[in-house]
Amino acid sequence: MSGVAIAINAAISGAAYCMTVRMIPRFREMFIKANLFGRDLCKKDKPQVPESFGVLIGCVFLVSLFLFIPIPFAFDEAAATDAITGGKPDTFPHDKFVELIAALLSICCMIFLGFADDVLDLRWRHKLLLPTIATLPLLMVYYVNYNSTTVIMPNFARNLFGTSLNIGALYYVFMGMLAVFCTNAINILAGINGLEVGQSLIIAGSILVFNVIELLLGHQVDSHIFSIYFMLPFLATTLALWKFNKYPSQVFVGDTYCYFAGMTFAVVGILGHFSKTLLLFFLPQILNFLYSTPQLFHFVPCPRHRLPKYDSKTDLLHISTTEFRLDDLNAPGRLMVTVLRNLRLISWHTKADGVVRTNNFTLINFVLVVFGPVHERVVTQMLMGFQVLCTLIALTIRYPLANYFYAKT
Amino acid sequence: MSGVAIAINAAISGAAYCMTVRMIPRFREMFIKANLFGRDLCKKDKPQVPESFGVLIGCVFLVSLFLFIPIPFAFDEAAATDAITGGKPDTFPHDKFVELIAALLSICCMIFLGFADDVLDLRWRHKLLLPTIATLPLLMVYYVNYNSTTVIMPNFARNLFGTSLNIGALYYVFMGMLAVFCTNAINILAGINGLEVGQSLIIAGSILVFNVIELLLGHQVDSHIFSIYFMLPFLATTLALWKFNKYPSQVFVGDTYCYFAGMTFAVVGILGHFSKTLLLFFLPQILNFLYSTPQLFHFVPCPRHRLPKYDSKTDLLHISTTEFRLDDLNAPGRLMVTVLRNLRLISWHTKADGVVRTNNFTLINFVLVVFGPVHERVVTQMLMGFQVLCTLIALTIRYPLANYFYAKT
Repeated sequence: MSGVAIAINAAISGAAYCMTVRMIPRFREMFIKANLFGRDLCKKDKPQVPESFGVLIGCVFLVSLFLFIPIPFAFDEAAATDAITGGKPDTFPHDKFVELIAALLSICCMIFLGFADDVLDLRWRHKLLLPTIATLPLLMVYYVNYNSTTVIMPNFARNLFGTSLNIGALYYVFMGMLAVFCTNAINILAGINGLEVGQSLIIAGSILVFNVIELLLGHQVDSHIFSIYFMLPFLATTLALWKFNKYPSQVFVGDTYCYFAGMTFAVVGILGHFSKTLLLFFLPQILNFLYSTPQLFHFVPCPRHRLPKYDSKTDLLHISTTEFRLDDLNAPGRLMVTVLRNLRLISWHTKADGVVRTNNFTLINFVLVVFGPVHERVVTQMLMGFQVLCTLIALTIRYPLANYFYAKT
Repeated sequence: MSGVAIAINAAISGAAYCMTVRMIPRFREMFIKANLFGRDLCKKDKPQVPESFGVLIGCVFLVSLFLFIPIPFAFDEAAATDAITGGKPDTFPHDKFVELIAALLSICCMIFLGFADDVLDLRWRHKLLLPTIATLPLLMVYYVNYNSTTVIMPNFARNLFGTSLNIGALYYVFMGMLAVFCTNAINILAGINGLEVGQSLIIAGSILVFNVIELLLGHQVDSHIFSIYFMLPFLATTLALWKFNKYPSQVFVGDTYCYFAGMTFAVVGILGHFSKTLLLFFLPQILNFLYSTPQLFHFVPCPRHRLPKYDSKTDLLHISTTEFRLDDLNAPGRLMVTVLRNLRLISWHTKADGVVRTNNFTLINFVLVVFGPVHERVVTQMLMGFQVLCTLIALTIRYPLANYFYAKT
C-alpha cells in the first residue's frame, strides 16, 4: 500500500510546488520591510535582494509533511479498524510513527535555528552547536528503534577487525557530526546566484535515484520509502525556490535554507540507514571543505568574504585573492600552500616585495583559476555539472565497487 | 522511578534558569543590532528595548527538554537492559516516547512561527492559521494514543445526553481551537511591562499545583508527570525572563514568547487530559477576550493600539479611548455598548456634538476605569493578583463543585 502513500505524497508535493511559486513573489516586499535583504554584489547595479527565503520554503515543507503524516498509517490495518470502532489501537506502529515525528522535529528545529542565525547573525561556535542540538531527537530515535552501531568491514580489513565491528557510542558521534557537516557544507559552497539551491536539487535528486534503485533491488524497502516521503516535498519546494533563486536571483535563500537542506539530507541518511552513501553524494562539498581548510582553520589569512570579484565591464567573475608572506605562515600552513602550489590547485603570484598573492581557497575560485574569468551563471552550471558527475561516481562506488569490496565471500 | 526523573528535570530546569539569566543581558546588543527592538512608550524617555526575547527563552527550553528526553526512559527496564546487550528493545514504550517528541515538535514549530511573525510582521489570518498548523502533530498523537473523544456529562445534562457523549471529530476541533485560543489569549492581554510573563508564570504555577494535587490524589499519574516535565523548565526559563521583563523592562518578549507559552500550555492540557481545567486557569484571558470582542470584531471602532496612555508628569497610566457616534454603530454594536454601559463596565463620556468617548475594551483599561490612573508596575501587579484569584476560583470549581456536578451516583 505504500505505493498509494507515495502517490499522495507526490500530489501534496505538487501542490506545495504551486503554492511556493505563488507565495515567493508575494512575500518579497515583506522580507525587505523586515530588513531581511542583501545586495547582490555580482551585478552591475548591485540590486537589493530579499534574503532568507529558506524560511518560507521550510514552512511549506513542514506543512506538507504535517498534512502527510497520517497517510502512511491510514493504510495500516490496525489503525484503520480503530477509526471505526474508536478507542486506542493496540498494534499501531508507534516506532515508525515516532521516526517521522522526530525527523520533523530535527528539521523544524534546524529551520528555526537557521532563521535565528539569519536574523541575529550568530557566532561561529553557534553554527557548530546548533545542528548538534537539533540532531539529539534523531539520535534518540535511532537509539530506541535500531541502536545498530555495527559497521560492516570491507574485505581487506576483515583480517584485522573481523567481518563487522561494533563501534558503539562512536557511531552516534559520527551521526552527530554528519548533521553538522551536512548543514555547514552547503553553507560553505555558496555565494553566487543559485548555487546553494542548485547543489541541493542535485543531491536530493541523487538520493531519490538511489532510493528508487534500492527499492527495485528490494533492499531495506521501509527505509527508502521513508526517505522518499521527505525527498519529494523537499525537491518540489526547492524547485520552486530555484525558479526565483537562479541567475539573476530575485530572492536569496539565507543560512536558513542551507541548514534546512543539510538537516533534511542528514535525517534521511541517518534514519534511512544510508549515511555513508549520503556522504558520497556530498563529494563536491567534501572537496570544497578540504580545499578550504587552510583558510577555515586560519593557517592562511582568510578575508571576511571569499566571493569571486565581479568585473562590471565584462560582466564576468574573477578570482578573489588573499595575500601573505610565506615566512609569516606557520609550518603546517607553509606545507599546505606548497603542496597546493605544486599540484597547481591554487594560483600563485609573487610580488616584488616578497608578498604572495593566491586565490581564496574555495571551489568557486578554483573553477575560475582553471577556466579564467567566467560568467556567474556559467560558474553555477559548471559546479552543478560537477555535482552530477560526482553522483555518477558515487553510484559507481556504491554499486560495482562496493560489491567487490564487501563481497559476501 | 518517575520521582528520580522529576528530580533530574528540576535540576536541568535550575541549570536552565542560571543559563538564561546569564544569557539575556549578553544577547541584548545582538537583538538591537538585528533591528529587533521597540520603544517603551510608557516611560519618560521612551527607551529603546530589545524585542522578541521569547526566542532565546524558547531555545533554552527546547535544549533543556532535548537533554531530558532520554531520562524517563532510562529507568524503563526494557530500555535499560538493551543498553547493555545492544540491539533493538522490544518493549520500549514508544507510545510515551512519541508523545514527548510530538509535544516538542508542536512547541518548536510555534516558537519558530512566532519568531517569524515578530520578524516579518505577519497578517492576522496567519496568527490564526499558524497555531492550527503547529497543533497537527499533537492531534495526530492524541488520535493514535487515545482517540478518546468522549465527554463526561454533568448530572443535570444526563437525562438529555446520557452519562457521557462521544463528540468524535468535534473533540479535535475543540483541541485545535484550544491551541489557537491559548496562543492568542496571552498575546491580547499584553502591552505593559511584565504582563505577558507575569500571567504565564501564574498559569504555569497553577498547572503545577493542579498536577501535584492530582498526583497526591493518585489520578492519572502518567499524564500529570508528563505535564510536570514540561512545566518545570517552562517555569524556570520564564522566571529568568521575568527578572529582566518586569517593570522597568530591560527586554521585551515579543509574539514569540506569547505563542511559545500558549502552545506549551495547550500541549500539556491536551496530552495531559486536562484541557477543560486548563481553560479555567485562563479565566482572566477569557474575560479579556469577551470584553474585547466588540472591538476585535469591529462592532466598535478599534484603534491600531489600545495601550493605556502614559502621563509623563505623574508617571501614571490613564485609559486610552475610542470615539464613535452611537447611530453609526450597527444594531449588535449598539446593544453591546449599551449593555456594557449599564453594567458600568466601560467609561462613558458624551461630547457636545453627540460623539461618545469610551475606554478601549481591554482588561488593562478596565483596571484603570475602576481604579483611576495607576502606576504601570501596579497595574501589572493588580492583573497578576486577579490571575491568582482566578486560579483559586478555578480550583474551587474543579474540586468541590465538580464533585457535586459529576457525582458518581
